[in-house]
Amino acid sequence: MSEFLVIPRQAHDQLVIQAYQSRGFTADEAAEGAKLAAEAARHGIRTHHALKALHLDHLFGSAAGGCTPGAEIEVLPSRFPASERWNANKKLGQSVAYRAINRAIELADQYGIAQIAVDNAFHYLWGGGYVMEAAERGYFAYTNCTSALAEVVPFGGKFPTLGTNPHSWGIPRGAANGFPIVIDWATSTVAMGRVQALKREGKPLPPGAAVDAAGQPTTDPDQVASLLPFGAHKGYGLSLINELMAAFIGGSLPTLRGRAIPPGEKKTPAFYFQIIHPEALSGGDFACGRSQQENLQAVIDDILGHGNDHAMLPGQLEAAARQRSDAAGGLLFTAAEVAEFNELAAELGLPPWDPASLAKG
Amino acid sequence: MSEFLVIPRQAHDQLVIQAYQSRGFTADEAAEGAKLAAEAARHGIRTHHALKALHLDHLFGSAAGGCTPGAEIEVLPSRFPASERWNANKKLGQSVAYRAINRAIELADQYGIAQIAVDNAFHYLWGGGYVMEAAERGYFAYTNCTSALAEVVPFGGKFPTLGTNPHSWGIPRGAANGFPIVIDWATSTVAMGRVQALKREGKPLPPGAAVDAAGQPTTDPDQVASLLPFGAHKGYGLSLINELMAAFIGGSLPTLRGRAIPPGEKKTPAFYFQIIHPEALSGGDFACGRSQQENLQAVIDDILGHGNDHAMLPGQLEAAARQRSDAAGGLLFTAAEVAEFNELAAELGLPPWDPASLAKG
Repeated sequence: MSEFLVIPRQAHDQLVIQAYQSRGFTADEAAEGAKLAAEAARHGIRTHHALKALHLDHLFGSAAGGCTPGAEIEVLPSRFPASERWNANKKLGQSVAYRAINRAIELADQYGIAQIAVDNAFHYLWGGGYVMEAAERGYFAYTNCTSALAEVVPFGGKFPTLGTNPHSWGIPRGAANGFPIVIDWATSTVAMGRVQALKREGKPLPPGAAVDAAGQPTTDPDQVASLLPFGAHKGYGLSLINELMAAFIGGSLPTLRGRAIPPGEKKTPAFYFQIIHPEALSGGDFACGRSQQENLQAVIDDILGHGNDHAMLPGQLEAAARQRSDAAGGLLFTAAEVAEFNELAAELGLPPWDPASLAKG
Repeated sequence: MSEFLVIPRQAHDQLVIQAYQSRGFTADEAAEGAKLAAEAARHGIRTHHALKALHLDHLFGSAAGGCTPGAEIEVLPSRFPASERWNANKKLGQSVAYRAINRAIELADQYGIAQIAVDNAFHYLWGGGYVMEAAERGYFAYTNCTSALAEVVPFGGKFPTLGTNPHSWGIPRGAANGFPIVIDWATSTVAMGRVQALKREGKPLPPGAAVDAAGQPTTDPDQVASLLPFGAHKGYGLSLINELMAAFIGGSLPTLRGRAIPPGEKKTPAFYFQIIHPEALSGGDFACGRSQQENLQAVIDDILGHGNDHAMLPGQLEAAARQRSDAAGGLLFTAAEVAEFNELAAELGLPPWDPASLAKG
């Protein structure tokens, strides 16, 4: 009847926290890593839950020198009161991102807009999670980062020199208006994981998504060497923004990220966070006597009206997944995922979750 | 040998200033309108030069109640020192935009990041021109606005409820690094003007660019009723950002813009401007002892290297057009455009430009 098993959040968090701590992460870091993983699972983001996070940490992070458990964030001196510059010293990305969002909110409360630029970072996984949290707290939020590997070919080129470089925006809606709007995607047409999935299913890629080893467009997943930006020169421009912002922050050559590097070089990604206080935007002159939030809802109703019943707001699928998770009383995982969590539990010397005794959701 | 005639900038500006003043605009407004028009022509932006600007003003602006010559910008009180809220009172969009960029730069010099939200605006034409100017002055710049008409169907819908809502980013490069990077495009796959051009040429649209009156995808320019966002749900999300930001500022229903409205309603677009001081981003830890600008150039060289000779930077075509204009000693227009300028001159009682005596460029 259902494909998912329900893991109570507390059980999930206990296991994930213990996994992070066994790798040397502090209690704070482990809790922040578990929180982002739980929120990803809760919102149906199956590509960025705990199993993926711990796998990435193993491949590129604490086991590979890319991430330093217990590292301290250095807040560098800045002459600009609405801006902070952080050296993350390769601290766990989720910890850095949650703290950056919190700090940027404090600054936006004072200045109306605020930014945090983060150098020497390690993967924060799901950018949408951070801007969603800020939007739920009532703020406009934005983040971008550079990806771990250069897999994307610039528009007009043939060799991959750009990351899949995601952008994430969160737009707040008052309690009466429903879920926060979260616009969150990579600047490649598809992710490399999607290419692997299509290969397994024996299906072609959409046109304009990838090139072969010679830099020629291909829809054959077996021939794919690199990805293409979405929307031709427009998505290319969006991918460039992350690389160039990172260049201003302290990121080095995109083709070095996630690879062996010459002495004196860097291969860390960079993060950028921005928060806007919605009151700082209000001209106070809304039509028909509406409040700011009523005006927002009227605009949304207009956009989705006029017969546009099949159009959706970004964030709607995530909100539906969250509702389903919350109704089920926990986080939803497939039987295969539960088996993988149980392998993790065994490594940590913890008892397994018994699929037969788990609720279905 | 050449398709263009060279109009000296001073002659262009005199004519355009006089045209604006004849419509009641102040000397300042006329000069700002002429400046944006000249910069658009100089950079090869043939869709937003003086003829287009004056035509738009006639259709939707000073002759139609959409733009008020001589209007004063009201700077509304704000408790947020890095943010300003402006009521443009339908002042000429170019004047408002140049002033907003200047003011946001002053604020970014103090706070590292700054924003100006503008309500009750009128079309500013070429967003790329404002962020390019800011980038030339050494700042990261961003602007978006809502378009005059709702011509774009939301992803999954069938009725146009979104503007072609452009985004413009300017990224500064030191003098040694060359032209500023300008990422500047509408969020529709093509503009309605492009549909008209394809219709005249008897050519099909690219797939995924437009729908017919029933909301079904079409590539036949004769059947096009509305446009589609570029990049499916991703471009849709980017178009939503402009509408929702405008909703927070004071914009009303997108389908009312540029149309007859019920009492109590508004149909003005909104503008958003943001400036970042690049020093506020720097983590000060660039690989191989590079400066921030040297690091930027190294990243760009990496992206465009590795055989990517045919890839370009956004802003490169505009920089080439500018070089050509400056080498020719003026602004380049077609004979048909010069004839149109001469009609304008005749209306104003000014002598025409003699095509035979104009240099070719």
